[in-house]
Amino acid sequence: MREVAVIGIGQTPVDEHWEKSLRVLAGEAALSALNDAGRESVDGLFVGNMMSGTANHQQHLGALIADWVGLRFTEAAKYEAACGSGAAAFRAGLLAVGSGQLDSALVVGVEKMTDSPSGEITSALATAADADWELDQGLSFVAINALVMRRYMYEFGWKHADFAGFSINAHNNAIHNPNARFHEGLTEVEYTKSPMISDPINLMDASPMGDGAAAVVLVPAEYLDKTHPLLITVVGSSAATDSVAVHGREDPLWLTAAASSTLQAYAQAGIKPSDIDVFELHDAFSIMAALSLEASGFAERGQGPRLALDGDIRPQGRIPIATRGGLKARGHPVGATGIYQIVEVIQQLRGEAGKTQVTDAVYGMTQNIGGSGSNILTHIFKRFQ
Amino acid sequence: MREVAVIGIGQTPVDEHWEKSLRVLAGEAALSALNDAGRESVDGLFVGNMMSGTANHQQHLGALIADWVGLRFTEAAKYEAACGSGAAAFRAGLLAVGSGQLDSALVVGVEKMTDSPSGEITSALATAADADWELDQGLSFVAINALVMRRYMYEFGWKHADFAGFSINAHNNAIHNPNARFHEGLTEVEYTKSPMISDPINLMDASPMGDGAAAVVLVPAEYLDKTHPLLITVVGSSAATDSVAVHGREDPLWLTAAASSTLQAYAQAGIKPSDIDVFELHDAFSIMAALSLEASGFAERGQGPRLALDGDIRPQGRIPIATRGGLKARGHPVGATGIYQIVEVIQQLRGEAGKTQVTDAVYGMTQNIGGSGSNILTHIFKRFQ
Repeated sequence: MREVAVIGIGQTPVDEHWEKSLRVLAGEAALSALNDAGRESVDGLFVGNMMSGTANHQQHLGALIADWVGLRFTEAAKYEAACGSGAAAFRAGLLAVGSGQLDSALVVGVEKMTDSPSGEITSALATAADADWELDQGLSFVAINALVMRRYMYEFGWKHADFAGFSINAHNNAIHNPNARFHEGLTEVEYTKSPMISDPINLMDASPMGDGAAAVVLVPAEYLDKTHPLLITVVGSSAATDSVAVHGREDPLWLTAAASSTLQAYAQAGIKPSDIDVFELHDAFSIMAALSLEASGFAERGQGPRLALDGDIRPQGRIPIATRGGLKARGHPVGATGIYQIVEVIQQLRGEAGKTQVTDAVYGMTQNIGGSGSNILTHIFKRFQ
Repeated sequence: MREVAVIGIGQTPVDEHWEKSLRVLAGEAALSALNDAGRESVDGLFVGNMMSGTANHQQHLGALIADWVGLRFTEAAKYEAACGSGAAAFRAGLLAVGSGQLDSALVVGVEKMTDSPSGEITSALATAADADWELDQGLSFVAINALVMRRYMYEFGWKHADFAGFSINAHNNAIHNPNARFHEGLTEVEYTKSPMISDPINLMDASPMGDGAAAVVLVPAEYLDKTHPLLITVVGSSAATDSVAVHGREDPLWLTAAASSTLQAYAQAGIKPSDIDVFELHDAFSIMAALSLEASGFAERGQGPRLALDGDIRPQGRIPIATRGGLKARGHPVGATGIYQIVEVIQQLRGEAGKTQVTDAVYGMTQNIGGSGSNILTHIFKRFQ
């Protein structure tokens, strides 16, 4: 497969965009990415979205958004892997350009969640879990994650307050990201006193829903001059799945699909975890940040919270995460999240991350998770000086 | 891109499968295709489905079905392009294998429509149209197609009875397909006296919903011996879109996206329309069969019904269509339909189509349509002797 470069990025703020329809929101990010890439058209549009059929009574987003952004007649489809939909769309676009079938691709992640009844959204989010074997038992999606966090605390001896660092880091970084949902810092007291949602997950452990869209433009790297200061290519791409029902897994506290997809991505890139300069992971709940760090090779099993306690996850730490706010504070418009992560890593590699810039970042990694660890897509990006 | 071969096919009957859950239905087709291919595993699973989030309260079908068919940990995602979802999943699997990233792929199309409230299914089908600009005017999906058919009859001077041949051919062929939804022939009198649904579309102009799943297995052609009698490869693959809202098109009676995608597929295969021996097209409504034949180069503009009147579309005619019943009589489980079409063309190329076998078929074409012509995917398959 030929090497693929990311030459354009775009995003809308994550917010309550009641005045903008789904296509308008997606269009803003898409046109911004095309503009950033200096292009008016591409050979294919790849849309990441999870719940438009339910929340917006609109499927068929590929053709709908293509037409809206001036790409009528262009190949287009929608890709869904629950909250991992953004990265699934990115990987499809990557393979289409890498295969030689297309010479350019626009990937847009979009989700519009805040102007539907909240019960409808909770119900739509629950379709990421196993309808027959989890939901029918009365579990919501957050309840499934709460069971995992409770078991993790029990097995490895952590207190709830030990997870505070994940949310504090995310909120502190989001202050400096104009596209983030929240711009307020967070203290440990605020974290521990936050209202309980599903014990032990409280409001500050959980990422907020939101409306948002993010987009990237891909072309073959061979079309660019390798000495160009902004050449950023995809050097690793891998996806893996696991049982959708958490109880079906051999070990509910180990993200097998994350371990498998990062191992393969590292091998493709020819690097090891310590080479990663910035890591945008899937902190939908703080427990997921811990599990992702462990499975991706940054902490021993059961020791993820240690990285937060020691400050290793801050922008100038050993393995910076959620540098633009993460799912926790940038927000989690589910089908768009995977593309926000990629846009933010590209910002870091370009040196455009402002006050939360990671010094001299060369390798950036994203990890987008569908369900409670059942579909995990990992991508590694490299900047060539 | 390297050449890709189809080495396994599987399908369930299209029926009311109230006793089988979504994953069981998909699993039957998937395991049947793997068995046909003589394989136990593949590198990736590509699921085509439109409405599981609404109709079955289950998204995330990639991981769900992968686990069920013994492919836990394997890469998997869902692909959606309204009623064109099956072919969208197929094309994604094709590019993944063609690109060299995967060495094998299983593509499954599945839809389970008959044990949800019918209002919910009508509403889910309507998400293939433009929610803001069509549905909000009170149009259902069939009403949109009825407007197109009425205008077509007016412009080109056809009577309703002139379309009878499409439905009669489909039903007559379905008699011999054990997996078809219906096994009764149809007379012209039955066609014309059938109850009206949305004038001028009557019950016999419209394809029935159903539960069903179909699957294929893909590998690089280079892994096979080209002299093998069953070597069937994909020699053309192309997708194109158009305005989702029919009123947004320059000409609502011409499928620009079909013309564009077939032209490109013919060019890739190095053939012309007259080389196609069998064509499984998207006869969701009889008007769509006429429009597809015209845009794909088999009839002049406005002259599609002539092929049905002259018997050219029968299994021994000039351009056989719906040879296993088509959407009209095999049934239209929307996200699965694109894979049923491919399975049926492979049956024809293998010489396994029984009483509706097309003599010595070498080139077979499928065309899967999302919306009323807004997302069209065309594939050409070739048998090597």
